[in-house]
This record gives sequence, structure tokens and C-alpha cells, in this order.
Amino acid sequence: MDDEIYTPAPMADPISIIGGSGALGYGLAVRLGRAGIPVTIGSRDAARAVEAAERAAAAVPDGSFTGLGNAEAAAESSIVILSVPFRNQSETLTNLKTTLQPGQLVVDATVPLAAAVSGKATRILGVWQGSAAQQAQEMVPEGVRVVSAFHTVAAAHLGDLDWQLDEDILVCGDKKDDKARVIELIGKIDGLRGVDAGKLEMSRIVESLTPLLIGINVRHKTHAGIKITGLPSA
Amino acid sequence: MDDEIYTPAPMADPISIIGGSGALGYGLAVRLGRAGIPVTIGSRDAARAVEAAERAAAAVPDGSFTGLGNAEAAAESSIVILSVPFRNQSETLTNLKTTLQPGQLVVDATVPLAAAVSGKATRILGVWQGSAAQQAQEMVPEGVRVVSAFHTVAAAHLGDLDWQLDEDILVCGDKKDDKARVIELIGKIDGLRGVDAGKLEMSRIVESLTPLLIGINVRHKTHAGIKITGLPSA
Repeated sequence: MDDEIYTPAPMADPISIIGGSGALGYGLAVRLGRAGIPVTIGSRDAARAVEAAERAAAAVPDGSFTGLGNAEAAAESSIVILSVPFRNQSETLTNLKTTLQPGQLVVDATVPLAAAVSGKATRILGVWQGSAAQQAQEMVPEGVRVVSAFHTVAAAHLGDLDWQLDEDILVCGDKKDDKARVIELIGKIDGLRGVDAGKLEMSRIVESLTPLLIGINVRHKTHAGIKITGLPSA
Repeated sequence: MDDEIYTPAPMADPISIIGGSGALGYGLAVRLGRAGIPVTIGSRDAARAVEAAERAAAAVPDGSFTGLGNAEAAAESSIVILSVPFRNQSETLTNLKTTLQPGQLVVDATVPLAAAVSGKATRILGVWQGSAAQQAQEMVPEGVRVVSAFHTVAAAHLGDLDWQLDEDILVCGDKKDDKARVIELIGKIDGLRGVDAGKLEMSRIVESLTPLLIGINVRHKTHAGIKITGLPSA
């Protein structure tokens, strides 16, 4: 970790994914990479990040992927996706305290599944702040804002580039502009649509969709997602 | 209220809707009526139930609609839909204690919106038992089972018979057979699909979708609903 002043990376709108060697993070990496967005994959172990970047580059030969340690990766982009298990969310954000800089936007995908404490993945933990996203907002440095997203899309579908996605991503956050940026980013992934699901406090509801869908997955042997009906078609 | 032994109504599989003069209950009544199912509309005020039944009959001339007080209505069918505001759920179930009989199935549509205590309709109350549906299960007489459903479909869309429905209804309950009965019933309404969302305890998640959708409705001036993607098409 270094204490340099954050300077935007030179390429147009790159994205960093903390926990990008995990299934969800990797799936987002290859989908964003295929959409022409340079992706920096972060991992606690830089070697694993490099390995994931190599895998992503093999899957998307015209994509741009870099592997770095989490802190170095977080310094690379103005939008930083946080894709780690709930068990590691707090520790990861503590480790990024001196890296994240005012103006950066953290897109938190964390879901407080009871599996984090050896409970069921179909149950959710109560988080003191209301949701994992609100915990993240409390932990990031002043001036860094948090939006939550990517709770309901199956990692397996993201990572399988032959799979035609067709579902919605619910986006929570306290600033409309932040949500608009994330919804625009989501729209660059073919088959995904971002939907403004309200303020960050609504993330407690959106996060709870993950255990609901995990239960449906088990019963139906599928990878379920969700769509909001009744919206004007984009 | 009377203490007669419950005997199944003579017609094939009628449905009773407690709170059937409200927007959601009425919407369900006309949709079920149009599907050829005899509907008994219950209301605290029998005169309002009769008026709602007359309105429903005008909207669906070949349907069968009866209006009764809640307790009389609850005695008419083996499946009783409970469609009342959370504020009235407990009182309503107390009033049905001597009417509901073992073997009856209560389909609870109650959502504990904070609006019940003059809070926001985009927020949900914590219910001691876990969810409104679990509160209902605690309150019904021994041998009566509760399934929850109909939380996410807009009353306005149900009540507008020109509106082509196209969405899912998540169904929670502890017995597969009970859920199968309710999913079959839902399937009789054109454009609705019932999806098994797990045990009754999962209702706390499904109930929370209502405030989420209410927020989306406000922002998008629509009546949103939900669909689960990735399921084998029925």
C-alpha cells in the first residue's frame, strides 16, 4: 500500500475490482473487459490477481486486464467494485483506508450471508448499520461514496461468456449522479440493465435477494436472477 | 361469527378473500373470477363486501362473486386469502379464531410497511416472529396452515382487467403441497406465475420487496413487479 496522491489512470474510465479473483469479481471482470473497459483485478494475493488477469485475457483476447494487490488495484480507477465475502469486507476496507481517495466511488457487492458465520447461505445476517453497503459507507474515508449493486446476478452466468444475460441489477445509493454512473456502466454489459432501487439504506432489501435466489437455485437447480417489470423499456 | 363445524362449500374450489373490498383483494377477486373461480369477498363491513361483489360482477359478468362479513366469508372456502393492511392483520386473525378450521389454508398477502405506524411505505417494520406471514401462522388455530403470496403484484394492475399481467408471484410456506396448491391457483390467472420462494421464514425477504417496488414506482411513476430469471419456462 502506498500513500501517493490518487491520480486518475490515463486510460478512459478503467474499473478496478477488489476481490476480482473470486467468482463474482472475475465474472464482472470478463464482462466489463468484453465491453471494452480496461479492468484492474485486485486480490489480497497479487499473484492470484495476475493469474486471474491472465485467465480473463485468454477469455477476452481483445480486453485489457491487469492484476495487482488490492490496494494497488484500488488506486487505479475512479470506480472501484468491492466484491469480497462479507467475512472479509471490513478487513478489506480497513486495508484500503489510506488508498481510497475523495471522489472515488466504491460499488459494493457484498451480501451478509449467514454463511459468513457458518450459517446457511439462504439466510442473511443483520448488520448493525442496516446493510453491508451501509457498513462500507461508514468505513470508507471521508469523500468516498458507496453505491451497492451486483447482488443478484449469478457469478456463474457472468463468467460464462457464452451465456446470454437478460436480467436487472438493482442499484442503491444516496446520490443520483453516482447511481447514474453505475447504471451507465452496467448498461455497457450486454443483457444487463441497472435499475435505481433507492437510497443506500434500501440495500438491506436488495442484499436479501441473494439468499432468496440461492434458495430458488437449490430448489430449481438453476442460477436465478431478477427483473423488474413495468419499467419503461430502456 | 358462528361456531358451526366447517364444511367445504359445494362449488368446485371457491376462494375467499378476507379484506376483499380493498384494492389488492378486489384485484385478486376479479382476476380469479375471470379465471372461472367462484370468489367470496369478505370485509369487516358486510355491506362493503356486497358492494365490492357487485362491482366485481359488473367487471366480470360471467364470474361468481358473493359479498359477506369476513368471518362468514372465511368459512366458505378451503383456501382463504388474507389481504388486509398490516395494521389490521392481528385483529382480523383474532376475529377469525373460531371460524378458521383445521385443513384450511390461509394465503397471507400482508406486508408490514412502516406506513402502518405512520412511517414510510418504502420502509418495512421488523416483526417479532420474522415476518407478517409468520405472525399469521402463530395466530391461526392449530391445523390451519399459512402460505404467503401476492406481495409484489400491483393492485392497480390486477384491478385493471385490460392490463396484460406478465410477472411472478413468490410463494413461501413450510409444506410443499400447500405451496403447490397456491402456485396452481396463481397459474390460473393469465400472466402470473407462482414461484416457490422457500419456507415461510423466507417471507421476511419477499415481504420486503413491496417497499422496494413502492420506491421504484415513485421514482419511475409506474407499477413495478418482479420476475425471476433463469427458471425453466413453465
